[in-house]
Amino acid sequence: MTDQFSKKAEAWSARFSEPVSDLVKRYTASVFFDNRLALFDIQGSLAHAEMLAAQGIISQQDRAAIERGMAQIRAEIEAGKFEWLLDLEDVHLNIEKRLTELVGDAGKRLHTGRSRNDQVATDIRLYVRAAIDDVVGMLGTLRSALVDLAERHADTILPGFTHLQVAQPITFGHHMLAYVEMFGRDAERMLDARRRVNRLPLGAAALAGTTFPIDRLRVAKTLGFEDVCHNSLDAVSDRDFAIEFTAAASLVMMHISRMSEELILWMSPRVGFIDIADRFCTGSSIMPQKKNPDVPELARGKTGRVYGHLMGLLTLMKGQPLAYNKDNQEDKEPLFDTVDTLLDTLRIFTDMAGGITVKPEAMRAAALQGYATATDLADYLVKKGLPFRDAHEAVAHAVRACDIAGCDLAEMPLERLREFSPLIGEDVFQVLTLEGSVAARDHVGGTAPNQVRAAIARVRQQLAK
Amino acid sequence: MTDQFSKKAEAWSARFSEPVSDLVKRYTASVFFDNRLALFDIQGSLAHAEMLAAQGIISQQDRAAIERGMAQIRAEIEAGKFEWLLDLEDVHLNIEKRLTELVGDAGKRLHTGRSRNDQVATDIRLYVRAAIDDVVGMLGTLRSALVDLAERHADTILPGFTHLQVAQPITFGHHMLAYVEMFGRDAERMLDARRRVNRLPLGAAALAGTTFPIDRLRVAKTLGFEDVCHNSLDAVSDRDFAIEFTAAASLVMMHISRMSEELILWMSPRVGFIDIADRFCTGSSIMPQKKNPDVPELARGKTGRVYGHLMGLLTLMKGQPLAYNKDNQEDKEPLFDTVDTLLDTLRIFTDMAGGITVKPEAMRAAALQGYATATDLADYLVKKGLPFRDAHEAVAHAVRACDIAGCDLAEMPLERLREFSPLIGEDVFQVLTLEGSVAARDHVGGTAPNQVRAAIARVRQQLAK
Amino acid sequence: MTDQFSKKAEAWSARFSEPVSDLVKRYTASVFFDNRLALFDIQGSLAHAEMLAAQGIISQQDRAAIERGMAQIRAEIEAGKFEWLLDLEDVHLNIEKRLTELVGDAGKRLHTGRSRNDQVATDIRLYVRAAIDDVVGMLGTLRSALVDLAERHADTILPGFTHLQVAQPITFGHHMLAYVEMFGRDAERMLDARRRVNRLPLGAAALAGTTFPIDRLRVAKTLGFEDVCHNSLDAVSDRDFAIEFTAAASLVMMHISRMSEELILWMSPRVGFIDIADRFCTGSSIMPQKKNPDVPELARGKTGRVYGHLMGLLTLMKGQPLAYNKDNQEDKEPLFDTVDTLLDTLRIFTDMAGGITVKPEAMRAAALQGYATATDLADYLVKKGLPFRDAHEAVAHAVRACDIAGCDLAEMPLERLREFSPLIGEDVFQVLTLEGSVAARDHVGGTAPNQVRAAIARVRQQLAK
Amino acid sequence: MTDQFSKKAEAWSARFSEPVSDLVKRYTASVFFDNRLALFDIQGSLAHAEMLAAQGIISQQDRAAIERGMAQIRAEIEAGKFEWLLDLEDVHLNIEKRLTELVGDAGKRLHTGRSRNDQVATDIRLYVRAAIDDVVGMLGTLRSALVDLAERHADTILPGFTHLQVAQPITFGHHMLAYVEMFGRDAERMLDARRRVNRLPLGAAALAGTTFPIDRLRVAKTLGFEDVCHNSLDAVSDRDFAIEFTAAASLVMMHISRMSEELILWMSPRVGFIDIADRFCTGSSIMPQKKNPDVPELARGKTGRVYGHLMGLLTLMKGQPLAYNKDNQEDKEPLFDTVDTLLDTLRIFTDMAGGITVKPEAMRAAALQGYATATDLADYLVKKGLPFRDAHEAVAHAVRACDIAGCDLAEMPLERLREFSPLIGEDVFQVLTLEGSVAARDHVGGTAPNQVRAAIARVRQQLAK
Repeated sequence: MTDQFSKKAEAWSARFSEPVSDLVKRYTASVFFDNRLALFDIQGSLAHAEMLAAQGIISQQDRAAIERGMAQIRAEIEAGKFEWLLDLEDVHLNIEKRLTELVGDAGKRLHTGRSRNDQVATDIRLYVRAAIDDVVGMLGTLRSALVDLAERHADTILPGFTHLQVAQPITFGHHMLAYVEMFGRDAERMLDARRRVNRLPLGAAALAGTTFPIDRLRVAKTLGFEDVCHNSLDAVSDRDFAIEFTAAASLVMMHISRMSEELILWMSPRVGFIDIADRFCTGSSIMPQKKNPDVPELARGKTGRVYGHLMGLLTLMKGQPLAYNKDNQEDKEPLFDTVDTLLDTLRIFTDMAGGITVKPEAMRAAALQGYATATDLADYLVKKGLPFRDAHEAVAHAVRACDIAGCDLAEMPLERLREFSPLIGEDVFQVLTLEGSVAARDHVGGTAPNQVRAAIARVRQQLAK
Repeated sequence: MTDQFSKKAEAWSARFSEPVSDLVKRYTASVFFDNRLALFDIQGSLAHAEMLAAQGIISQQDRAAIERGMAQIRAEIEAGKFEWLLDLEDVHLNIEKRLTELVGDAGKRLHTGRSRNDQVATDIRLYVRAAIDDVVGMLGTLRSALVDLAERHADTILPGFTHLQVAQPITFGHHMLAYVEMFGRDAERMLDARRRVNRLPLGAAALAGTTFPIDRLRVAKTLGFEDVCHNSLDAVSDRDFAIEFTAAASLVMMHISRMSEELILWMSPRVGFIDIADRFCTGSSIMPQKKNPDVPELARGKTGRVYGHLMGLLTLMKGQPLAYNKDNQEDKEPLFDTVDTLLDTLRIFTDMAGGITVKPEAMRAAALQGYATATDLADYLVKKGLPFRDAHEAVAHAVRACDIAGCDLAEMPLERLREFSPLIGEDVFQVLTLEGSVAARDHVGGTAPNQVRAAIARVRQQLAK
Repeated sequence: MTDQFSKKAEAWSARFSEPVSDLVKRYTASVFFDNRLALFDIQGSLAHAEMLAAQGIISQQDRAAIERGMAQIRAEIEAGKFEWLLDLEDVHLNIEKRLTELVGDAGKRLHTGRSRNDQVATDIRLYVRAAIDDVVGMLGTLRSALVDLAERHADTILPGFTHLQVAQPITFGHHMLAYVEMFGRDAERMLDARRRVNRLPLGAAALAGTTFPIDRLRVAKTLGFEDVCHNSLDAVSDRDFAIEFTAAASLVMMHISRMSEELILWMSPRVGFIDIADRFCTGSSIMPQKKNPDVPELARGKTGRVYGHLMGLLTLMKGQPLAYNKDNQEDKEPLFDTVDTLLDTLRIFTDMAGGITVKPEAMRAAALQGYATATDLADYLVKKGLPFRDAHEAVAHAVRACDIAGCDLAEMPLERLREFSPLIGEDVFQVLTLEGSVAARDHVGGTAPNQVRAAIARVRQQLAK
Repeated sequence: MTDQFSKKAEAWSARFSEPVSDLVKRYTASVFFDNRLALFDIQGSLAHAEMLAAQGIISQQDRAAIERGMAQIRAEIEAGKFEWLLDLEDVHLNIEKRLTELVGDAGKRLHTGRSRNDQVATDIRLYVRAAIDDVVGMLGTLRSALVDLAERHADTILPGFTHLQVAQPITFGHHMLAYVEMFGRDAERMLDARRRVNRLPLGAAALAGTTFPIDRLRVAKTLGFEDVCHNSLDAVSDRDFAIEFTAAASLVMMHISRMSEELILWMSPRVGFIDIADRFCTGSSIMPQKKNPDVPELARGKTGRVYGHLMGLLTLMKGQPLAYNKDNQEDKEPLFDTVDTLLDTLRIFTDMAGGITVKPEAMRAAALQGYATATDLADYLVKKGLPFRDAHEAVAHAVRACDIAGCDLAEMPLERLREFSPLIGEDVFQVLTLEGSVAARDHVGGTAPNQVRAAIARVRQQLAK
C-alpha cells in the first residue's frame, strides 16, 4: 500500500481489473496543460490544511509537515525541476504524490474532506481571479497610453466617418477617447465577473459536501474569497465564470479588432493618416518596398480565436447533467489561451500607442473633401428659424450644386448659397470652417477640443484611483 | 417641399438622382421588425423635445404640439391602426412623418440636435433595459417556484451523480437549489449589464455631437438613465450592451439546457424519478402510448438559438470601423428573438416547476444501488485514524468484494468488512445508511436537510428584497 | 371519435388526462413557421399515398380521394385561404385534419406506415433541395454579372494590396475574377451537399421502420431522391444536411463580407476607386451630403446572422441521444432565414454588379504610389543573374532611397539606380511601368490581361453547362 | 549581405530603420507552431525547384544543390536536431536560411518566382490533404469496428427511444448501424472537401503571379494536385478549405457527442445496458466505488473545442479585404488542433468499440416496460380494416387501461383488449411480442435482424473498396 500513486490507475486502484491503456492515458490526462495551475493548487492546499488543523481534523504536526513539503515542491516547480508524470494524470495527483514522498502519512491526510472536483474548481477560480487582475491592470495601462495620444491631438482635425463616408469633422483626440471608453467598459465587466469568480467551491467535496466538521468561511478568508459557493452540487459543476470571463474577453478583442481595422486603414497609402513605427511592422519576402502593419492585422485575426473559445465553452456546458462530468476538463485550454492572447495583445497595443505617428495634413486634407460641414450649414439655417427637415433639404440641394460645380460649400459664393435659402448671410462662412465646426460641438461627449480635454481629465482621475 | 417624407428616398432627397429599387428597399428596410421599438422611440422623442424647449431650441408651443401629436400616434399604434410604410424605411421616419402630418412644422423641428444614429441607440437601450427588468423578474419567479419545490423535498433522498454514475446520496431539495444558485447568478449578471445599458447616447447626434446647446443630463434624468455616454463616436457605434445581454442570456439558456437534460433523463422510464404533468407533454402521431417531455426538449433546443444570436452579434461587430455603419441594423432581430425566447422559456419553466411529481421510492431505490455510501465508510476510517488515501484504498477493496458478492456495503457482515480494516466496528452501519450519510454533510452548502432549509430561507430573504 | 383532430391534444387523445396549456401550445407549436413547408408536405404525402395504393396497403379509391383532397388543399393554400390552427400544432396535422374533413376515412388512412418523424424529415429535405437549386442558380447569375464587369475592365490597372499596402499592380478584371472563383467553389459545395440532402427518410416511420409492406425505392423515385436513408434511426434523427447547407451558406456570406468590405473601402472618398449607383445607397437623416453604401454594409452585417444560425444548429445537435427529440423542431427557423438571407443577398449583389462605376484614373494614381513595381525590379535583377535574396535586398535599398528622395522607382535616374546594382541597364524602365508589370504575369492564374480574358472564357464555358 | 537571414528583421532589412521588438517578435512569429509543416514545406520547395530547373529559370546544378541541402535538412528535422529560431519568424525562413548555409547561392535562388503567400498556402493544403486521408482512414476503421459490434448483436433487442421515452423495440445492431451511417457521411464530406483542398496555389506568388516563365501544371502534377488555383489573388487569400474541413470535422464531433451521450447514459446504473472496459474508465479521488466513462465524456466535451475552431476560422475571414493579410496566420493552430482532436478521438473510439460489453437482459427488461409494441397493435388494427387514425386512438385507450391496471399490453386478457376494438383476435399476441415486432419491420432501413445483416454486408462492401 506504500506506493499507491506510482501508477495513476492505482490512485483508485482496487476497484479496477485492468490498467488504463496508453492512448487513453494521453487522451484523458491534463497534467501537461493544467500544471500551469500548480502554484494555485499549492495555495489552495495550504489553506485547506490550515483549516483542517484549526478544526482538529488533522494534527498541527501534519499541517507543519504539509507546509514544509509544499514549500519544497513549490521550489522544485519554480526551479523547473519538478517531474510531471503522465501516469499521475493531473496537477493535483502529481503534487499530492510528491508530497507523500516527502512527508509520508501527513501527505495522505491532505485530501481529507475534499475531492478533486472542488479542488480543481478552486484552483481555476484562483487562476481566473489573478488573470482578471492582470487584464484590468493592462486595460488601465492601455487606456492611459491612448489618453496621452489623445491629449497630443486634442485639436488635430480629421474627418469623422460613418459608412466610411465623410460625415463631420472631429478631432483625433476625440476619436482615441472612443476606444478609451470601450476599454473602460471592458474593465468594468471584468470586475463584475471577478465578484462571481471570487467565491469558494472548496468544501463541496465530490458533490455533496463532506462529513468532516470543516470551516469553509475560514478557508475563504485565507484565500481572499468574498463568499463561499452556497450549493455543493453547483460548486463543482459551475463553469459560468469561465464563460463570463471569455465573453468579456471577446468584447475586449472585438474592440481591438475595430481599432486594428482603423489603424490598418489609416496606414493604407490612399488614406495615409498615420504611420506605425517600424518595430511593429514587417516586410515582405518578395516585395522589397512593403511595410505591413502586422501587429494590428494579427490582433484582428486573434479575435476569432477568442470568439472560438467562447463558443467552445458554451458548447461544452450545454446539456450537461449535474454534478461533475469529465467534459469539464476541457475548460482549461481555452481559458489559458484566452488569458495569454488578451494579455499579449493589450501589452503590445499599449506599446504601439506610443509608436503611432499622426499626419495632421493628410487628415485635414481628407476633412476638406466630402462636405463635412454640411450639417453645420443645416444647423445654421435652423438657428435662423427654418424647421430642421426643411433646412436639411435646402442643404442637400446646395451640396448637389457643389458636386456639379466641383467645389466645397465654403468655396461657393454667398449669392449662390443664398439661392438655396435666403436666410444665409455673411456669417455662414465661419460655421463652414473645420475649426468652427469642431468647436461648436461643445457639450458632454462632443468633439470640441475643450470637451476632449475635459474627458481626458475625467479618465485620468478614474485611472488614478 | 411639403411632402419630403412621402417616399423614403426623399428623406434625403435632393442629393440623389434615382430612387432606391424595390428589392433594395426591402433589403435595407427595418420597419417591419423595428416597429417593436415604437413606444420607446416616442418616449425618447418626448424627452428630447422637453429638453429642446427647456433650452429654448424649440418653442414651448412646438413642444406642446409634439406631445399632442405623439399622444395620438401612441394611441394609433396601441390600437393597431398605425400604418407602417416600407417606403419610410424604419420606425423613426414612420413616426416622424406621421407627426409632421399631424402637427406640421413642429414635427419637422423634432429632429433638431439629434440623428437617427443616436436616436436608435437610445431606443434600443430603453428596450434592453425593460427586457432586463422583465428577465430579472422572471428569474425571481422561477427561483421562487424551485425553492418551493426544494422545500417540499428537503428530505427526499436520491443518488447524486457524477459522470452519471452513483456518487453519494443527496436530497432532491439540495439538487433543486443548485439551479436556484445558477439562476441567481444569472440575475446578478443581468443587473450588472443593466448598469452599462442604462447610459444615454442621445446628444451624440450623427457621431460628433451637435452645435445646439443641448442638455444631455436633463434628458438622461427624464428617461431614468444613470449616466450619459461620454464619447459621441462611441455612443453611436457601441453595441457592447447587446452582446453583453445576449451573453448573459446564453448562460441562462445553458442552465435551462442542463435542467432540461436532467428532467428528460429523470422522466425516462428506466430512471423514473419524476413525472411531468400532461399539460407540458405531447404524444405521438404513431405511437399511442407515448408521453413526451416536449417542453424541456424544446427548451434545450432553444439554447442553440440564443448561442447563435450571440455569435451573430459578435461577428457583426468584428472589425467595424467607427462610427456608425449600416451593419448595425442587424443588431435588432437577434436581440428581439433572444428576449422572447428567454421570457417564454422562463415563464414556462416556472409553470412546469409546479407540474413536477417527484417519485421518492424510485429515487431511494436508485440511491441504494451503486455503493453510494462508500465515501462515508472511508471518512469513518479516517476518523478512526487511517490516512485518507489508505482509507480510500481499503474501501475500494471492500466495494470490489461487494461487487463479487452482489451485495451492498451495508449488507455485508461486520466480520467480512473487518477484513478490509480492523478499525471497523459495529457503529459503521449507521454511517452506511442513506439518512446518516445525508445528515452528516452538515455545513454551509452541504446536502444535509437542515442545510437545505437554511439555504431556502436565505434565498427567500434575497427574493423578498 | 369523429373529431379527434379538433384539438391538437386529442390527436394523441386518450392517453392524456389534461389538455396542454395555452402557453405550452404557443411554445411548442411550429405551424406559424413550418407552414412554409406545406407544398412539400403535400408532395410527400401524394408520393406516399401513391405507393400505399400500389402496394395494396390502401385502396385505389382512397388514393384518388387523397389526391382530390390534396388538390383542393393546395389550391386553398395558394389562394391564402387555408386556415392554419395553432391547436393543430404543425403543418402536418393541419393538412391531415383538413384532408379528413374533405375526404373522410381515406384521410385517416394516409398516415399508415409513416410517422411525423419521417414525414417532417422528408419535407425539410425537399425544401433544402429546392433551396440549393435556387442558390446555385443565383450564384451562377452573380458570377455571370461579375464576369461581365471583369471583361469591361480586363485592362484597367489598380494597385493590388496585401496588408492594405500597395503590393503589385493588377487589373480590376483579375480582381473581380477572384470573387468569381469564390462563388464558384460555393456552388460546388452546394451541389456536394445536395447529394446528401437528396436521400429519402420516408419509411423510417417513428424510428424503426414499419410493419407494412412499403416500397421505399418507389417513393424515392417519385420524389426524385437519388437514394433512401439506409438506417431508420438515423433517418429520423439526422440533421447533418441542415448543418452542411448552413456551413456552405456561411462561406457564401463570408465571401460576400469580403467583397462588401472592398466595395465600401473603394467607395470611401480617400480611395475613390468606384461609385455605386444611387439606387443601392441611402442618405442621412442629419447630414445632407451623405451617400452611404448601405447594401454592402448590411450584407456584411448579415454574415453574422448566418454564422449564428450555423452555431445554433451545431449546438442543437450536440449530445442529442437517438432517435428523434423535440429539440429538432428548432432546425427550421435558422434554415428558413439562411435561405432567405442568401437568396436576397445574391440577388441584390447581382443587380449591384451592374451599378458599379469604375474610376480608372483614381486606380491608376493609386498604383503609381507605393513602389508597386519593386518586385519587377527584383525579378529583373534575378534574370540578370543575381540570386533572388540578393536582388530583394538591393531593391529594398533602392526603395529606401526613393522614399527619402520622394520619388518613384521609375522616376529615379539610371545612374542612381545602378548604385544599388551594376546589373541595371536602360531596359529597366520598361519593367517599371504598370502595363509592363501587369503584362509580364502571363501564366495560368496571373493578372496579365490576356490571362484575364482566358479565365473569363473558361468561366463562361462552365456557366453555359 | 552574407548574413541577411541572421535576424528576421533583416530578411526585408534595408527598408526598415529599427528592429522589431522582442514582444512583437513573439507575438507575430509562427515558427513554434508552423514547424509542423516543415516536411510539407520541403516537399513543396523541391517540386518548385524541379520546375524552375526544367523551365531554365535556375540551373540543374542549383536544383541538385537544393535537393542535397533539403535532404540534409529533412534528416536534421527528423532527428530532432534542427534548430528553430524565433528570429526567423516562420518555418519557411528557418528552412531557407539553413539551406543557404548549406548550399550557398542556390539556396538564395529557391524563392525565385514564388512568395511566402503562395508557399504557405501550398504547405497548408498539403497538410490538410494528408489529414483528410488520415481522417477518412480512421473513419473507415471505426465504422468497421462498429459493424463488427452490430453483427454480434443483430438480434439483441433493446427499446428504441424517442424523447428518451420507450418508443418501439429495435435491435442493438440496428442502433449501431445508425452511427455507421453518420460516420459514412462524414467520410463522404471529407472526400468532397479534399477535391477543393487539392488545388495548387503555388505560382500566385505574392498575389498577382510572377514574371518568370513558370509551369504551374508541372508543379501540380509533381505534388499530386488535381488542378491549379485559377486566380492568383484568390489563391493566396483563400482559406475556404480550412473552414470546410473544420465544418466537416464539427459534424464528426457532433456524431461523436451523440454516441458519447448514449454510451454514458447506457452505462448509468439505472439503465445498465452496457459496460465499458476498465481501461477506458477512471475512478474517483474520493469515492472508492466509482467507475467513470471518462473517454466518452471527454470526447463529448471536445466537441466544443472543434465547434470553437470553426467559429474562430469563420470570424477570422469575415470582412478581410484581398489579397493576403497577416490575420491569416491564425488559421494554423485551430486546424492543427482540430486534426489532432479528430484523429485521437476516432482512434480511441475504435478501440473502445471492442471494449463495450452489451447486457441483453437489461435491454430486454427495458423493452418490456413502456408499451413498446403499441404501434404494432395499431398496425394490426389497420390491417384488419380500421383507418390508421382510429386504430391509433383505440390503442391509446388500451394503453391507458394497462397503465391503470399496471400491466403490459401483452398481459391483458383478450376479452379486455376486445373492449377497445372488436377486430382484435387471438393472433394479436404474436404481434405484441418483441421478436414479432422487430422482425416485422422488414424493409430497407428497417430494424428487422435480416435487414440489419443486409446493411452490414452493404457497408462491408463499401469499406472493402
